[in-house]
Amino acid sequence: MIVEIISIGTELLLGDVIDTNSAYIAEKLTENGFDIHYVSTVGDNLERIIKTIKRAKQRADIIITSGGLGPTDDDLTREAIAASMDLGLNKKQELLREIKSYFKEKNYSMTVNNEKQACLPVGATAIPNGKGTAPGILLERDDIIIISMPGVPGEMKNMLERSILPYLKDLSAELIQSRVLNFFGIGESSLEMEIKDILDKQTNPTIALLAGKGEVKVRITSKASSKEKVGELIAAVEKEIRGRVGEYIYGSNDKGLAVVVGELLKEKGLCMATAESCTGGLLGDRITNIPGSSEYFQGGVIAYSNQMKHKFLRVKEDTLKEYGAVSAETAQEMAEGIQGNMNADIGIAITGIAGPGGGSQEKPVGLVYLGLATDDYSQTFKLKLRNDRAWNKWMSTQYALYYLFRYLVNGQEF
Amino acid sequence: MIVEIISIGTELLLGDVIDTNSAYIAEKLTENGFDIHYVSTVGDNLERIIKTIKRAKQRADIIITSGGLGPTDDDLTREAIAASMDLGLNKKQELLREIKSYFKEKNYSMTVNNEKQACLPVGATAIPNGKGTAPGILLERDDIIIISMPGVPGEMKNMLERSILPYLKDLSAELIQSRVLNFFGIGESSLEMEIKDILDKQTNPTIALLAGKGEVKVRITSKASSKEKVGELIAAVEKEIRGRVGEYIYGSNDKGLAVVVGELLKEKGLCMATAESCTGGLLGDRITNIPGSSEYFQGGVIAYSNQMKHKFLRVKEDTLKEYGAVSAETAQEMAEGIQGNMNADIGIAITGIAGPGGGSQEKPVGLVYLGLATDDYSQTFKLKLRNDRAWNKWMSTQYALYYLFRYLVNGQEF
Repeated sequence: MIVEIISIGTELLLGDVIDTNSAYIAEKLTENGFDIHYVSTVGDNLERIIKTIKRAKQRADIIITSGGLGPTDDDLTREAIAASMDLGLNKKQELLREIKSYFKEKNYSMTVNNEKQACLPVGATAIPNGKGTAPGILLERDDIIIISMPGVPGEMKNMLERSILPYLKDLSAELIQSRVLNFFGIGESSLEMEIKDILDKQTNPTIALLAGKGEVKVRITSKASSKEKVGELIAAVEKEIRGRVGEYIYGSNDKGLAVVVGELLKEKGLCMATAESCTGGLLGDRITNIPGSSEYFQGGVIAYSNQMKHKFLRVKEDTLKEYGAVSAETAQEMAEGIQGNMNADIGIAITGIAGPGGGSQEKPVGLVYLGLATDDYSQTFKLKLRNDRAWNKWMSTQYALYYLFRYLVNGQEF
Repeated sequence: MIVEIISIGTELLLGDVIDTNSAYIAEKLTENGFDIHYVSTVGDNLERIIKTIKRAKQRADIIITSGGLGPTDDDLTREAIAASMDLGLNKKQELLREIKSYFKEKNYSMTVNNEKQACLPVGATAIPNGKGTAPGILLERDDIIIISMPGVPGEMKNMLERSILPYLKDLSAELIQSRVLNFFGIGESSLEMEIKDILDKQTNPTIALLAGKGEVKVRITSKASSKEKVGELIAAVEKEIRGRVGEYIYGSNDKGLAVVVGELLKEKGLCMATAESCTGGLLGDRITNIPGSSEYFQGGVIAYSNQMKHKFLRVKEDTLKEYGAVSAETAQEMAEGIQGNMNADIGIAITGIAGPGGGSQEKPVGLVYLGLATDDYSQTFKLKLRNDRAWNKWMSTQYALYYLFRYLVNGQEF
């Protein structure tokens, strides 16, 4: 079934608020086998909301709106739904009682404009709002289903999970599942070339290439009547893809590189420490975004100055003088230094020129060296990135995590 | 002039990616006096993209699209623009040369599908892409202007700032300017209460309250025929606002806390170093996101383990034992330790419980201590944040930067 999502609110058109609701609703609906062809955003303007709903009626089976259900004058969704379906609005006494009791419970005084929230288009059902006063709206009529949710993300998510998804799932007979494969070290266009024939013959499962931040993902989505059948269909395609480009796959689903590396370290009972120069703490930040990372992450040194590289990481002054701060030699000594100083199982170091300044002919912006050291092993890697500070910082940490991943999986074979 | 924004990409309809581009474009255009009535999102489906562009032509003066300009088969924006305007596509040899040289420079092999990016609708102009291979498209025809940008946020932003905003500004007769005041330490609703009468009487300038990430902004936008007049109108409102809530204003426009602090450090010729526990490197990362930060940032220690706090920051074992790692005493010793070890002018320390685990009755998740130390001064601060790891990490760095800002402006008066 085809669903159209409409986000309502002038704040979205001004760019003051990013519309995260649409993506959330879209993701949940896609997972449940619904097709979304369009998402529209419209401001708090009655005429334009009506036009948007009328157009959606022509091209979708289900319309889901978020926003514009509150008590103020610029909350116009219920009026717009009624008008676009040629229906009147009814004030429902039981809803009014519920809203009044909500205010009483919270000890808030209820202003008159809140009574508006007890109004529904004739024939519509109220959807309970567990987190606020505005009930949602469900209207089934003329081969179209209109569902309206509040715009506050917490209220919307709660209503979607508790009331709307169960209702929608009952409408669809088939079971749908997705699996995402995460790639690193291969570009989107190269990956597409490698698996183009698999992508082209896609029907069930369908396969989608998704660009991430410095990585690529492949999503395999399958429909079938049973869980086993869905699993089999996905596994067959996954096997085919792994046969072609398996060496670039580091994980699956929501698990990014930092999560996968953390799981491997925990599994092997190893701990690590970091020595960062040009990334300035981003690697540590990414590692510590994961709850429980203190189990395997001891900490690190942000050695932005040469003084710090020398003092905290034992990088030799001769090395800094002879090869420079951005060199394989310094990266290696930084990795060995943090590993040794911390008695860590693994030390990871990053040193490079993030830019925009600091580059030279010999050592241009985007040149980065990584070091990986253990008690009995030490290795460096050279990266040539771009003239973009944020990208260089991010990609340096991506590569650092990726090489750490490779080391944890394959050992010293790079 | 009325602008319609179209975001193109199936990943947006599946909810895999949140559409941040539309909000960014909307914000920049609103600031420059353009009106946005609709934002539409459509998947990588030629027919539907064409329909969406054709409908936008009927209700807008300018159409801005993002996404679908890449090299793969599902990048269909250039084909859709050509079709919706009844135009053919031309392969431009000079664009092809540029794309080839981009790949050559990066030492990447260029796959055949990339040649597509050299194609433009007949009569359109290429907009240079300083950060990737896909040029943007500018087409002026039949009283409509179509502008297409790549979907990768970094490439889109770069193109918008460098080429498209200057072009659009030339189209508009009146001069429009905005000034944003950045607040820290006051909530959105409290700020609204304080300046409600100023907000309510807004006509020219208009005033908007914007919620940031752990901070609030006020945007003052004014239109007039001359630069001087615009400046006067904005200055008068700014003065009124500063008179009420000036103590919460730390800066203006695009300058976040880390930028403002960096400028103050440079101005005063001071340098700093960091000691981070629960933020895991985020503070260092934020400081080093700013080009040239090596002038005033020496580096820091990510002291995730007690061993690191002791070894690199000289935190006494007795202090850790008696008061615990999350305490004012430890924060103070961390700040003094990094300041002393590095001979820095200022040391900043953060230690706390980011969560979700690690909390107790006495020391709940969200408890954070900050330390600030100089040669002759030392101060600690206590924060009570939330049960949200990412929020706690972020807000701890916000407060650390804010107190550093206050110290740099007011000295030891907190």
